[in-house]
Amino acid sequence: MTERLVVVGGDAAGMSAAAQARRLRTAAELEIVVLEQSDVVSYSACGIPYWVAGQVGDRDDLIARTPAQFAAADITVHIGTRAEAIDLDAGEVHARGGARFGYDRLVVATGGRPSRPPIPGLDAPGVFGVHRLDDGAAIRAAIDRLPADGPRRGLVLGGGYIGLEMAEALQDRGLEVTVVLADPLPMALLDTDMGERVCAALGAMGMTVHADQAVREVLVDADGRACGVRTDVGTYETDLIVLGLGMGPEVSLAAESGLAIGPTGAVDVDRSQRCRDHPEVFAAGDCAQTFHRVTGEVAHVALGTHANKQGRVAGSVIGGRPARFAGVLGTAVTRVRELEIGRTGLCTTQAEEAGFAYRTDVIEATTRAGYFPGAEEIAVKLVTEAGSGQLLGAQVVGGPGSAKRIDVLATAIWAGMTAEEMAGSDLSYAPPFSPTYDPVVVAARAVSRIEQG
Amino acid sequence: MTERLVVVGGDAAGMSAAAQARRLRTAAELEIVVLEQSDVVSYSACGIPYWVAGQVGDRDDLIARTPAQFAAADITVHIGTRAEAIDLDAGEVHARGGARFGYDRLVVATGGRPSRPPIPGLDAPGVFGVHRLDDGAAIRAAIDRLPADGPRRGLVLGGGYIGLEMAEALQDRGLEVTVVLADPLPMALLDTDMGERVCAALGAMGMTVHADQAVREVLVDADGRACGVRTDVGTYETDLIVLGLGMGPEVSLAAESGLAIGPTGAVDVDRSQRCRDHPEVFAAGDCAQTFHRVTGEVAHVALGTHANKQGRVAGSVIGGRPARFAGVLGTAVTRVRELEIGRTGLCTTQAEEAGFAYRTDVIEATTRAGYFPGAEEIAVKLVTEAGSGQLLGAQVVGGPGSAKRIDVLATAIWAGMTAEEMAGSDLSYAPPFSPTYDPVVVAARAVSRIEQG
Repeated sequence: MTERLVVVGGDAAGMSAAAQARRLRTAAELEIVVLEQSDVVSYSACGIPYWVAGQVGDRDDLIARTPAQFAAADITVHIGTRAEAIDLDAGEVHARGGARFGYDRLVVATGGRPSRPPIPGLDAPGVFGVHRLDDGAAIRAAIDRLPADGPRRGLVLGGGYIGLEMAEALQDRGLEVTVVLADPLPMALLDTDMGERVCAALGAMGMTVHADQAVREVLVDADGRACGVRTDVGTYETDLIVLGLGMGPEVSLAAESGLAIGPTGAVDVDRSQRCRDHPEVFAAGDCAQTFHRVTGEVAHVALGTHANKQGRVAGSVIGGRPARFAGVLGTAVTRVRELEIGRTGLCTTQAEEAGFAYRTDVIEATTRAGYFPGAEEIAVKLVTEAGSGQLLGAQVVGGPGSAKRIDVLATAIWAGMTAEEMAGSDLSYAPPFSPTYDPVVVAARAVSRIEQG
Repeated sequence: MTERLVVVGGDAAGMSAAAQARRLRTAAELEIVVLEQSDVVSYSACGIPYWVAGQVGDRDDLIARTPAQFAAADITVHIGTRAEAIDLDAGEVHARGGARFGYDRLVVATGGRPSRPPIPGLDAPGVFGVHRLDDGAAIRAAIDRLPADGPRRGLVLGGGYIGLEMAEALQDRGLEVTVVLADPLPMALLDTDMGERVCAALGAMGMTVHADQAVREVLVDADGRACGVRTDVGTYETDLIVLGLGMGPEVSLAAESGLAIGPTGAVDVDRSQRCRDHPEVFAAGDCAQTFHRVTGEVAHVALGTHANKQGRVAGSVIGGRPARFAGVLGTAVTRVRELEIGRTGLCTTQAEEAGFAYRTDVIEATTRAGYFPGAEEIAVKLVTEAGSGQLLGAQVVGGPGSAKRIDVLATAIWAGMTAEEMAGSDLSYAPPFSPTYDPVVVAARAVSRIEQG
């Protein structure tokens, strides 16, 4: 008898779950139906800033697979179909408009919800999110409407990854860019000293950063369009506003249906992405709670990498192959022009919250052999457990070639290595790629030297 | 009472040993004397191709520290001083010219000896090594003597790292480049399929590769200058010849003095770099035998990274702080124009020799998100233990951004991770840096999918 899997939400987690379940079960065994409220599935929200910037030419480039491509793999996608309720007892999803989709298995992959603090005027036209492809299209259109020779000003609220990528994108399009932060520094998941490096670099790129200022109001012009913000420090005029205030879990559907919500505010699941009280229901991606590999505690980290892997775990289990999600370190990278930023594991705030006795070490080195053309400064910061020297977290800020070095440290943390072990490890060297001792090893040595001494 | 440390050989291993011993012992406690046969210490042989190419402008850029700088740290360097014998019983090094240097501790760091097969004509003028800075200067001078508009041809014997880097350098200087290999493919420490990728790329760069041809003779002109080579297949004219035939250990001083030589042909040392029968003598760097982290067997791998670390271990022990060298994976990277190459751990030949039952998986991916400008192809090959899935070795060949990914795999191998663990790991993602699943993870998944299935 054919069972039916219904997936709510057709982006990274949902489509990974669907695709993985399909790999393991034929259409005769398992019917797969995806409900997606927008008109597109399997798209790269992370690519929106580069599309706005013009570095990626076409919206369709950001779409990995279309509904037609999924249909060819016997996965039915209903776009424009918003799930409004889940009847857990009946095993049915109710869509807006009245359609009902019965399920044997359900994957909730409703994604993230961009933070929108209760600021008057935030809903005015001219204020843009960066969540869906439509947001990208709207920002592009708004930029296109600006006079070529008149004022071209963009204001970004928030200094996380998306905020900084959008700041670069607006500058690429010839806008004068202002970044307004409630926090003292951009990149809240970097430590203060590393965030300061980023902040200084933004200034050197010609961006204006107003930090440590809560926005009290979005100002609107006579037509009701956003034209500036008022903070508790000053008033800043602009021609468009982009929100990069972070992302929480989108759990309204799950919560209203009675699925358990965890202490992080995301859907509570076990390590197979399964809802504990409803073993036929799974949640994955930005809407789901997960756990941190270093602390062992529950966590909510909205990243596409995790969404893909969690979806795949859910799809495996549904397909009949046991699978467990291995946890997160929150490894993330970005760049703003030539400045590259990476982080993984615990920053000092997180280490402190988790109750670790920790130490920190920061080193400065070069991305290539010092004498090699294109050698740029790189700073590497390690957070290690005091005494044991176990790596807890790492941060890098530097020139081209810096960011992806975080993967080495993420792998070392993943494996439970100490700084001492990392210091002895055999990383590659050639003048175009690193100094004889890679900066990552230099950082590990700085810790181990003192641990030994 | 002041003891004396004598170091024979003033490059990576020797100067690391000297510097580390000095960090731990004052000049009143330990006198440090370095004997170096050339006129320069602490230089980057790895930088010579880039100096020849003109990418690095100045010879002095390749010198990390001068004898005067070492003198300021109370390390006495005698340049132009060739050690000719060690009297182990008397505890004395005899230098050419008659000077004797008594020691309490001795570090033998005589480095590597470039392979020079017994080919007639190999000693002719116009045939150049790439070992010392003087070699680089000689090649530069030879290139400068070529007519600007006449024939400008360079021939490289051997296709290892140095050979390919020199091929690029000669091409950079406007020479028509031919590479002649005794092996069927360049990069002997890559598997055949990965070496083929490199070979194809060299051809696409306009280099001529004659593979699988033993050189029988270096041809000389009427002035006795090298003007071509004759192989068992053909004869190739050229204006200069560069040798990139690999590197063995330079052990003549050690062997003649009675220090034990290991089965690899390099000086036998324990894991503290100490000669077993002469605990007051240490050897480090390209002249010393080491051990492979994966096989646990003795190995000889001539790389500057190991030389630095082994020297540091010897210096620590001499300085009174216990230290052990943690072994090698033979991690190495290079690039030829846009083509980047990396390898670590065991290739299939090595896995077979070591007696592993292994499997291999190769994947193709892109260095960045597929839609992102500058995304280039990357191939990742993993060698894993059959059954356990333990990572034994890895190879990458691809466009810019490929090479340093080998460090992630080197770290995973270092930590004893399986492909399955690697597949779950939390590596970074952003469109300018990688697809959602980093190619390294895609490769690990390819293994684990089959291991699971």
